[in-house]
Amino acid sequence: MSTQARILVFDTFGTVVDWHGSIVKELESLFPDLNADAFAKAWRDQYHPMMQKVMSKELPWTKIDDLNRLILNDILDEFDLSHLDEDQRRALNFVWHRLKPWSDSVPGLQRLKTKFLIAPLSNGNMSLLTNMAKAAGLPWDCVLSAEIFKAYKPDPRTYLGVLELFDVKPSQVMMVAAHASDLKAARSCGLQTAFIYRPLEWGMSPPQPAHLHTEFDLTCTSIEDLASQLAC
Amino acid sequence: MSTQARILVFDTFGTVVDWHGSIVKELESLFPDLNADAFAKAWRDQYHPMMQKVMSKELPWTKIDDLNRLILNDILDEFDLSHLDEDQRRALNFVWHRLKPWSDSVPGLQRLKTKFLIAPLSNGNMSLLTNMAKAAGLPWDCVLSAEIFKAYKPDPRTYLGVLELFDVKPSQVMMVAAHASDLKAARSCGLQTAFIYRPLEWGMSPPQPAHLHTEFDLTCTSIEDLASQLAC
Repeated sequence: MSTQARILVFDTFGTVVDWHGSIVKELESLFPDLNADAFAKAWRDQYHPMMQKVMSKELPWTKIDDLNRLILNDILDEFDLSHLDEDQRRALNFVWHRLKPWSDSVPGLQRLKTKFLIAPLSNGNMSLLTNMAKAAGLPWDCVLSAEIFKAYKPDPRTYLGVLELFDVKPSQVMMVAAHASDLKAARSCGLQTAFIYRPLEWGMSPPQPAHLHTEFDLTCTSIEDLASQLAC
Repeated sequence: MSTQARILVFDTFGTVVDWHGSIVKELESLFPDLNADAFAKAWRDQYHPMMQKVMSKELPWTKIDDLNRLILNDILDEFDLSHLDEDQRRALNFVWHRLKPWSDSVPGLQRLKTKFLIAPLSNGNMSLLTNMAKAAGLPWDCVLSAEIFKAYKPDPRTYLGVLELFDVKPSQVMMVAAHASDLKAARSCGLQTAFIYRPLEWGMSPPQPAHLHTEFDLTCTSIEDLASQLAC
């Protein structure tokens, strides 16, 4: 498919990196008796409600590292791990900086980078996204974070912020995500949209079956598939 | 030298890329009869006064692309090039996105990247720095611009903004620049400092002789020299 887009922006958690698998693996090595699958899901479950507290101004602007830490403190109690001290909690919280990419992510991004400007557009904070990219070898041209715009997706300020930074029309930017809510919001701002199907985002026993969305500009089974569809 | 720093932030214009040589080369190919050296210097001469207008609030926040364009409009008259149309002016203004690195910059950055998180901290806007990095192969871990902080260096908000984004102490960041004013301001914020000597920044006939500053933490003759001094 030919496209007017010259900039591709990517959701990261779930789309580019496997948060569930990465967190479960790290938890299993640290706490062999823990239900790591349930712990990872409990952590992620509170992610949207916490961002909502920021967007509704119940909380002041708070970066994801700090939201993740607030959630972690709660679920450590719930999973009988409240004995972890400050250093251990801090180290565990940084697992979000160490998330591993899906196997197709790095080769797909490398191909896309030859033709497009590529960047994350993630609710993760700048240091999280930068540390993650460095550790995982994600070859971004720059790192774009909700933290720059002081608004969390799907707030339109994030998508419109990209247009302003790069002085481009909405049709020149494509949002790439595994989540329909993100893509719907991007489409409302005039961006092009590519859905990446990630049925394993929540592991082998997801809370809901993963739906294959076909209502966006592109429907892809991986980032390598996106590269193929965009003739990279 | 061992250092506490784990993040290196770089001034770009003059420090990493050769603005004078790159602009002169492009002007010479476009306008063989022009005094390209004088034109490039006239353009750069107005750079600090224009940023000062933003910082004094005489102008609202204005990105460097737009400040460069305001200056360009003035000097085209001065150099008898006022016949250039909108498309030509726009294309010429984007020469700042196409500046070439000094020969030591890319190999030096590649070495430094193995041990440090590296990023520009430049008054150039995000799209300028990102396009420049992509064209020149500058291997940044992320792109940091004054545009994120809505303040131009040497305003402390730029240096302190990096500390906040990365949640680090001042001594964990080193500012690298060819300009003493930038380094003095960074040092006032507690950052470590490395001076890079670039005697050819203003070409072969600089308005003032380039001074070799030795009052900062490191004095380097190139970015490769910086990498050697930091044992990369």
